[in-house]
Amino acid sequence: MMGASEDAEEFAVDYPENQCFGCSPHNERGMRMRFRSVGPGVVESHHTVEEHLAGAPGVVHGGIQAVLLDEAMGVAIHQSDGGADIDVVTAEFKLRYRRPVATGVPLVVRGTLQRREGRDFWLEGAIVDASGELLTVAEARWRQISTRTPR
Amino acid sequence: MMGASEDAEEFAVDYPENQCFGCSPHNERGMRMRFRSVGPGVVESHHTVEEHLAGAPGVVHGGIQAVLLDEAMGVAIHQSDGGADIDVVTAEFKLRYRRPVATGVPLVVRGTLQRREGRDFWLEGAIVDASGELLTVAEARWRQISTRTPR
Repeated sequence: MMGASEDAEEFAVDYPENQCFGCSPHNERGMRMRFRSVGPGVVESHHTVEEHLAGAPGVVHGGIQAVLLDEAMGVAIHQSDGGADIDVVTAEFKLRYRRPVATGVPLVVRGTLQRREGRDFWLEGAIVDASGELLTVAEARWRQISTRTPR
Repeated sequence: MMGASEDAEEFAVDYPENQCFGCSPHNERGMRMRFRSVGPGVVESHHTVEEHLAGAPGVVHGGIQAVLLDEAMGVAIHQSDGGADIDVVTAEFKLRYRRPVATGVPLVVRGTLQRREGRDFWLEGAIVDASGELLTVAEARWRQISTRTPR
């Protein structure tokens, strides 16, 4: 099973200034991730990672897994109530690598907003394979910033 | 100041099977990081990140920062006593983003092996700018694996 979002409409983070390595549809050297909103503050990306982004052969680099999870979490904030127009940055990010994540196969990357307290947002993330097995899990704290300072 | 390693000889992780996104000298779509050994279990990489690896414009993507730190930590293990021929994978990885890390400027990425206990290795990492300011800090636990299973 690939998650409950098979039928949800996929979208890109498409605005002119977006050249982000993870999510820009315009960065030809980037990952061009796409997303599906699957509930309040819950976002999935169905993504297959290219081999040039491997660490060991056939295995997605741990830092590239961080890109995947960071993107799903950021979009989860922006898709949540009141999150559309705010600027947020990652403050703390913790990953647990449980099993190797393969390149070249469909993955589901999930970001879930757990709670918000003032300017702080707590999120969980996961990478699962096509059978639903949990490969990597993550927790993060994001912080709203007052200006459009890049992160 | 760029660290104590200005004069240390730079090396690449150059073996035929290495196609790693972070450290392979042969992956033309990778970051091709190079390293300097600056003490027992301490490695630095002097690296300038290209703009296509940004998140917000001009700022290194948080996941790409994870690539930088993960690489410096892994090489620190391999450069330590008894670490040359072992296979290790990242098990847990925690990052704290303190200040934006700019693309296009020289950075120093440092990985330091703190201690080893059986199959587990604890490491610290840091990204600093040319003035020595600490931008991102990291902690990780790596684990030795018994076979050459890719991570």
